[in-house]
Parts: sequence; C-alpha cells; structure tokens
Amino acid sequence: MKTERQMNFKQLQQQKVEHIEAVIRKYLPEETGYQKTIFEAMNYSVLAGGKRLRPMLMEESFRLFGGEGEVIEPFMAALEMIHNYSLVHDDLPAMDNDEYRRGRKTTWSVYGDGMAVLAGDGLLNLAFETAAGAFSLVSDYEEAKRVARALQILGAKAGIYGMIGGQTADIEAENGKNPLTEELLLFIHEKKTAALIQAALMIGAVLAGADESAVSQMEKAAYNIGIAFQIQDDILDVTSTTEVLGKPVGSDEKNHKLTYVTLKGIEASKREVERLSDEAIRILDSFENKNEFLQELVESLITREK
Amino acid sequence: MKTERQMNFKQLQQQKVEHIEAVIRKYLPEETGYQKTIFEAMNYSVLAGGKRLRPMLMEESFRLFGGEGEVIEPFMAALEMIHNYSLVHDDLPAMDNDEYRRGRKTTWSVYGDGMAVLAGDGLLNLAFETAAGAFSLVSDYEEAKRVARALQILGAKAGIYGMIGGQTADIEAENGKNPLTEELLLFIHEKKTAALIQAALMIGAVLAGADESAVSQMEKAAYNIGIAFQIQDDILDVTSTTEVLGKPVGSDEKNHKLTYVTLKGIEASKREVERLSDEAIRILDSFENKNEFLQELVESLITREK
Repeated sequence: MKTERQMNFKQLQQQKVEHIEAVIRKYLPEETGYQKTIFEAMNYSVLAGGKRLRPMLMEESFRLFGGEGEVIEPFMAALEMIHNYSLVHDDLPAMDNDEYRRGRKTTWSVYGDGMAVLAGDGLLNLAFETAAGAFSLVSDYEEAKRVARALQILGAKAGIYGMIGGQTADIEAENGKNPLTEELLLFIHEKKTAALIQAALMIGAVLAGADESAVSQMEKAAYNIGIAFQIQDDILDVTSTTEVLGKPVGSDEKNHKLTYVTLKGIEASKREVERLSDEAIRILDSFENKNEFLQELVESLITREK
Repeated sequence: MKTERQMNFKQLQQQKVEHIEAVIRKYLPEETGYQKTIFEAMNYSVLAGGKRLRPMLMEESFRLFGGEGEVIEPFMAALEMIHNYSLVHDDLPAMDNDEYRRGRKTTWSVYGDGMAVLAGDGLLNLAFETAAGAFSLVSDYEEAKRVARALQILGAKAGIYGMIGGQTADIEAENGKNPLTEELLLFIHEKKTAALIQAALMIGAVLAGADESAVSQMEKAAYNIGIAFQIQDDILDVTSTTEVLGKPVGSDEKNHKLTYVTLKGIEASKREVERLSDEAIRILDSFENKNEFLQELVESLITREK
C-alpha cells in the first residue's frame, strides 16, 4: 500500500517526466533528408522512455538554488543525449552485444551496428552542440561564464576521466587486465554511475548561480547517491525476486561478478547504502533553500525495491 | 624538379606541422591510471602523423585576420581530435572494416573493436572539452562570444548536419537506399570532406575577430577547397599510377563507385577543379591582409599529384 505522500510524489514525478520529454524533443532532429536513418536511430534511442533521472536531478538542483529561466533546458537535453549515446554504444556487438534493453530491441539490432556507431556519435556531438546553444540565452559576461563552467563540467564528467573512463576500467577488469580490488570497484562505480549524476547536480547549481563551495557539496552528494544506487542494485540482485525486479536475480553470482555485496556481505552493504544516503540527504538539507521533491527523489532511488 | 619557392614552402610547412603536433600533444592524455588502455589507443590514433591539414588551415586563417595569442590552440587540437575519432570509427569492422590505414594498423586492429569504439568516443568528448577550455583564455564578454560562436561552428560542422551526416548519407547510398545523383554526390562531399575544412577556416576567422560576412566568405572558400580536393582525388584514381599515388589506382572503376569523374568525364572534372580552386584563391586574396602561405597551401592541396 502506498501512502498518500508517495502517491503525490509519484504523480508529481510523472508530470515532471512529461515536461522533461517535451524539453528533450525540442532538440532532437526532424526525421527528414539524406541523413534520415541516423535521425530515426537517434530518436529511437532517446525516446525509448525511462525515468529521465539525470535531467530531473539537474532541474531540481537548479530550483534548489533559485534558478529561473530556460538556460537549464539545453543542458537537461544534452545530459540525456549523453546517457543514451552511452547505452547505444554499450549495447553494440563490439561491446556488451545486447539485443534487448528493457524488453525493447537495442538500436544496433534495429538499424545495424554501423548505423548504431554513427547514431551514438551523432548523439554525443549533438549533446555538446545543444549545451553550447545555451550561450544564445545569456546576455552578460557573468552568465556566459556560468554556461562555460557548466560545459566544462559536462565534458569532464562524460569523458575519459568520467563516464568513458569508468567504462574502460570496467572492460579492462572484465578482461582480467587489472585485479578487481575494492578501490577499483569504487573507481568504476564513481565514473560509470556517479559521474553523470554529479554532472546533473553540479550543472543545476552552477547555472542557478550557486558558489563553488555549494557546487562541490553537490558533487559530494551526487557521489554518495551514485555509489548507494549501485550498491542497492547489487543488493537487489541477491535479495529480490525475478517478479519484483523484472529481470533475472542472482545473475552477479552466476557470472562470478565481484560486487560490493560479494566483497562485504549483505549487512555491511545495507549499512553502507544507509550511510551514503543519509549523508547525501544531509547535504541537500544543508542549504538555505529546500527542495522537498529532490529529497524524496533521492530517497526513492536509494530505498527502491526494483 | 622543385622550384626554390616550392622548397621553401615545403620547409615552412614541415616547421608548422611540428608546431601543430606540439600543440596537440598538450591536450592528449597521459598514459597512466585504470584507463591506461584508452589513453594509449587515443594517442596511437592522433599521433599517427599526417599533414595536420585542418589545424594548419585554422591557424593560417586566424593569422590572415590578424589573430594573436593562444585562444586558437585548443580549437586546433579539438579539430584534429575530431578528424581522428572519425577515422577510428570509420575503420571499425562495423563500418569499413579496414585493418590498415596508410600502411599502419588501425586502432581497432591493435586494441580490439570495443576499445576502438571507446577511444573514438573519448576523442570526440575530449575535443569538446578541449575547445570549451578556451573560455579560460578570454577576459571579456566580446571574446567569450567569439569562443561560443567557434564552439557552435565546431559542433555544427562535425555533427549530424555536417561530417556525421555526410558519413550517414554515404553509407545509405552504398547500401542502395538512395539513388546516387549528382546532388547526393555533392551533398556527401560537402558534408564528409568540406565540413571540417569549413570549420577550420571559419573558426580561425571568428577567433581573430573577423565579421560574419568574412566568416561566410571563408565558409564558401572552404566549400570550394573541399569539393575540389575530392574531385582531384577521383581524377588521380583514373590518371595516376600506383607508384606515384602509393595506393592502387582504378579502384573506383573496379568498385563501380560513382564519382564526379564517372559522372562528368575527366576533362569536365579538371575544369571544375580549376574553377573551384580559382574562386577559393580569389576569396582568400580579397581581404585587406594577405597570407601567402595559406594561398600556397590551398594550391598545393588542389593541384597535388598524390
């Protein structure tokens, strides 16, 4: 049974998802011209649905710091494009070779792997084009510097010292090139999972005009959220059922995958999720303004049952 | 026999190549850490040598319009990264499946195709990070607006309405999805070959403070250079020898590839190269300042024999 508060949260979340999808659509290509197929492949991937978690966190962080106006919108769309290009390339036969993602055919299995490489490239390039377009929405040097700082964060968190770096370290560990220690495991989670959440919360704060100390607090909160989210994933793989989770449980053990849970055990993992999550909430609650929806969103991510 | 003028030009060109390589190296990753392999793969691709044509055109355009200082350097490196990521992805088994490029193993055939996908992504992302880094070199709103305009050009010419779009149209034509007409052929050459040359000449002009009318003249000159370069390629495939060209001649005919030459014949193609090249030189010569090296560089590209 859901409480009334949860019902309201879910309804609000659904409204926000619809708003975010309208924002994203504004920046996606029209499916016409000699490049029609790549436009279709890009839209197929980005418009597959999903919780739009990253742009949602970004917009809520922007609101938390009193941000107003449309300057956040190109960055919301850009971050979602980056998230989606990474899925398109991850699913490729050359990478994870996944034909399905959440019950839907992956981009390469619909459009071929050559076109999926190009569609991923197209989304990554369009992400930066879209974000750089935010300069047309500012009217003085101070605002321009915020957009420049936001672009710098986007690039750093998505790139070889961020998400792409985590993906590389993960593949290298799977290939047995580096022994999987706790340090490496946390490195992979930080880069692969937390980095784009950091981009979301940091860019929201920067564009709202928050100072660098607040931005760095948001980076810390996002780190905690990302790592807690990932450990919760590993816990559910052990404790949940296939019915609730909607995908096979026990797959980590079956694949001999080293996770935080196999490393530390269930109880220590649960305590770590709680510690990380408490600290994240404490940070979000430490600013003068409050954003109750953002706090509930973060709680729902970490205490989720699927 | 080379004339003395050509000798001097070649020496000067070689000096400039060395300067450009020093600039590029500043922005490439150090090969250390858990992501070591991707750093190696990226550097392997970018440091393979070559004429550094695009950054060279960019810097010469910057000089033509009286540009000074270091703000051009991150853009020179960024454009070369974009050129190289496109080669890394083009060579993939999922795309052209090339094991060698200019006698050297391609990135995927050394590092595997998964790592080559990531290395290409890493270079594209790093290109935008590097270019956006130019904001740290400016000190007022006017200069910041130039960097923002340069970023916008870089994104547009590299993306789905530029280079990636041309690549897509080319693949689609090869797959027989669109009939290859003269219009489509010029579309592919404009996007695949001319777009990054346009980015080079336009960004050089923008960062030097040239007005939009001059920038648009440079866009036109670069279009001509790109198309003439491509037609010259097709002419050489018919008229050159394997010894001079360093690769098999007649391959277009063997592969039943429709080119400007098969469409219009050799003589008309040669006249078109001359017309395009004359117009490009006329534009470069129409500004108050002159850049003799730039004019010689453009001539050498179009009248080349290999």
